[in-house]
Amino acid sequence: MPQFLDTTTADFETAFTALLSAKREDSPDVDAIVADIIADVRARGDQAVIDLTAKFDRLELTPETLAFSPEEIAEHVAQVSPADRAALELAAERIRAYHVRQMPPNQTWTDPDGATLGWRWGAVAAAGLYVPGGLASYPSSVLMNAIPAKVAGVDRLAIAVPTPDGVVNPLVLLAARIAGVDEIYRIGGAQAIAALAYGTETIPPVDKITGPGNAFVAAAKRRVFGKVGIDMIAGPSEILVIADKDNDPDWIALDLMSQAEHDASAQSILITDDAAFGQAVAEAVEARLQTLERREIAGASWRDFGAVITVRDLPEAAALSNRIAPEHLELCVADPETLAEDCRHAGAIFLGQFTPEAIGDYVGGPNHVLPTARSARFSSGLSVMDFLKRTTLSKMTPAALKAIGPTAERLAQSESLEAHGLSVRARLDQLNR
Amino acid sequence: MPQFLDTTTADFETAFTALLSAKREDSPDVDAIVADIIADVRARGDQAVIDLTAKFDRLELTPETLAFSPEEIAEHVAQVSPADRAALELAAERIRAYHVRQMPPNQTWTDPDGATLGWRWGAVAAAGLYVPGGLASYPSSVLMNAIPAKVAGVDRLAIAVPTPDGVVNPLVLLAARIAGVDEIYRIGGAQAIAALAYGTETIPPVDKITGPGNAFVAAAKRRVFGKVGIDMIAGPSEILVIADKDNDPDWIALDLMSQAEHDASAQSILITDDAAFGQAVAEAVEARLQTLERREIAGASWRDFGAVITVRDLPEAAALSNRIAPEHLELCVADPETLAEDCRHAGAIFLGQFTPEAIGDYVGGPNHVLPTARSARFSSGLSVMDFLKRTTLSKMTPAALKAIGPTAERLAQSESLEAHGLSVRARLDQLNR
Repeated sequence: MPQFLDTTTADFETAFTALLSAKREDSPDVDAIVADIIADVRARGDQAVIDLTAKFDRLELTPETLAFSPEEIAEHVAQVSPADRAALELAAERIRAYHVRQMPPNQTWTDPDGATLGWRWGAVAAAGLYVPGGLASYPSSVLMNAIPAKVAGVDRLAIAVPTPDGVVNPLVLLAARIAGVDEIYRIGGAQAIAALAYGTETIPPVDKITGPGNAFVAAAKRRVFGKVGIDMIAGPSEILVIADKDNDPDWIALDLMSQAEHDASAQSILITDDAAFGQAVAEAVEARLQTLERREIAGASWRDFGAVITVRDLPEAAALSNRIAPEHLELCVADPETLAEDCRHAGAIFLGQFTPEAIGDYVGGPNHVLPTARSARFSSGLSVMDFLKRTTLSKMTPAALKAIGPTAERLAQSESLEAHGLSVRARLDQLNR
Repeated sequence: MPQFLDTTTADFETAFTALLSAKREDSPDVDAIVADIIADVRARGDQAVIDLTAKFDRLELTPETLAFSPEEIAEHVAQVSPADRAALELAAERIRAYHVRQMPPNQTWTDPDGATLGWRWGAVAAAGLYVPGGLASYPSSVLMNAIPAKVAGVDRLAIAVPTPDGVVNPLVLLAARIAGVDEIYRIGGAQAIAALAYGTETIPPVDKITGPGNAFVAAAKRRVFGKVGIDMIAGPSEILVIADKDNDPDWIALDLMSQAEHDASAQSILITDDAAFGQAVAEAVEARLQTLERREIAGASWRDFGAVITVRDLPEAAALSNRIAPEHLELCVADPETLAEDCRHAGAIFLGQFTPEAIGDYVGGPNHVLPTARSARFSSGLSVMDFLKRTTLSKMTPAALKAIGPTAERLAQSESLEAHGLSVRARLDQLNR
């Protein structure tokens, strides 16, 4: 059973604080191992990647087989059923339609002093996308990472996906092809991140790396940060459902379980203003846990990190939601739009009882790569912006320089940066001559 | 003298690659010390910060004097000359006018399937700004960090600025007041970053930390990343000037020196299509280095990391610029707008000979916190966006769920996530009943 909390009880604050700060993830300290792997790849290039892939993935590669050939991709992709293919294509179309709208406009204007100012957005030249192999190899994540990159205009998009023992997920290759990925390497772990960041003889380096991974991948991303850009370091998934009593307890139970089944470290929380409804949902969860395929994982997550919180009213629910800053927030209430206005910190909000979070995982259109572990307080889900950067533009006319130059000179002097001031003064002196 | 390179010589590629990869910064490994400091602040709160401030800044504080009082601030600020005050106020006004335009719009739309989609931007609730003490205590950086935060709508903005031996820079306090900063703490180093990230009895925690700092501050920011958001880890400053022969060599020399005077690790590079002009600029630099106040620093930077590169033509200059991906790029050519179109990777571009980079440091309007060390390939200068985060919104009607739900269910099945599929199926079954 999950924890049951009630805001009207004396020990609520203590219990809620403990829930917020519960350490859900065992992060093994793999930093030293990862540092060695990165150094090895930087020193020995292809051969290091090949050796490490033989060791960790039990797969013998050559420089020629590091990447999938077009023929291999076609062969694997041919195994995908028409129904799966159609589903991926519809998902890709909807994700693309959403992300196209994120493209920010360039701006330029001339201000009253005659200074022309503005900025220009441009795409990262090359991006690398990490895709976990094995169990957590999700074609939907390929779409969610690759489509924003391509919409942004990234010239070259490479995927690294390990194939332990040579096992390939054809859906991952198909998703990559649908999304327009240019290169697919069958490598994984810290060695894949190092190869993407620093390049090898066969693998040209990229400028930005995104995508989820295990502790080795996360530690490697943290280490190469600065050499290349990275997206967030994702933690286990979370959902917060705020639901009133006018919901089917089984629907809400399934929504909670759809997070819990990801990972024993996932967290599912229900906040309701009706204690009996909370109890009914908990019972529905227990019933579903009898038969779910992933009942061991989902059950462990629910038992260890699940919670049902009864509140006095919906404003109190919004206040708690802001302290949780959930990755996913479902608002199953009569007026979800109004409640959403008070929920300031959330990666994604799902409005109303016909919007289960699973829609957002696949076909809604918004990205499913979202900030976890309360980081929605300060960060956003993956977007086109992650593959763009902004260059600011300034142009002074002689008149503009005369108008604002003396102020720059004054501030440079106050900061004891003489050459800064002189670079302005030399121009002003000639203009005033 | 700086390095002289010429793209027509056989050894150019080798020399240019060496220039690109020159390690300009000695990063002492302070990570273990910083880890201890953070642990200490987490364990002992105020008292740890007080003890560490006594040790590193030779300053005795109490919980009551960690923050400047309004009276102290007023007293220090009263010492600022009217000219300096007017300069800071004009700079603030121009920076605000530029950054207000960065506020991104919210969007919501309903697609043909009846799904309402969109996103909403919201401000980070609390931000902390680190301001170095001593020599590198720049009031202009206070404006550049604090104004975007306030424009974004950050509720609570705190500054940490160390005052070693009790020495206060009144201009920093005035800049903070002009920018609307709410709290100013006289603490620095890793202990200040830890206090902002985790909070103490006196200092409430923030959600995002920005601002430059020494190796301890940089290591601490890297460590608290994830618990809070951080901006980039800034390296030493850089400028690339692309100039044709129709420029005053002394102006260009001063522009190069305005970066070099920041730091012996700074880098100033000139690219020109006229070797004689390059020589003339190098001579003008030598002349200026005879008298500049900061000639030791500027001279060391120019000698160790400066370069004058002669190219065949301007397109070649743009190609090299893209490999350098400079923080600051000055285009002193006849048609800077056209050349700028080919310069894809730069933090800030300054167009034409009347736009010395120093204008951008103070009063142009664009931010002067910019990506260094080639990171303009994948990142942008500080902006209002750094203090905002996006929440995505989705709402399905029954019709929309019927239209796209089956696709979500199919993809969930292909990823073996049964509860995901069931959360959609349960709703579809009722709708189809």
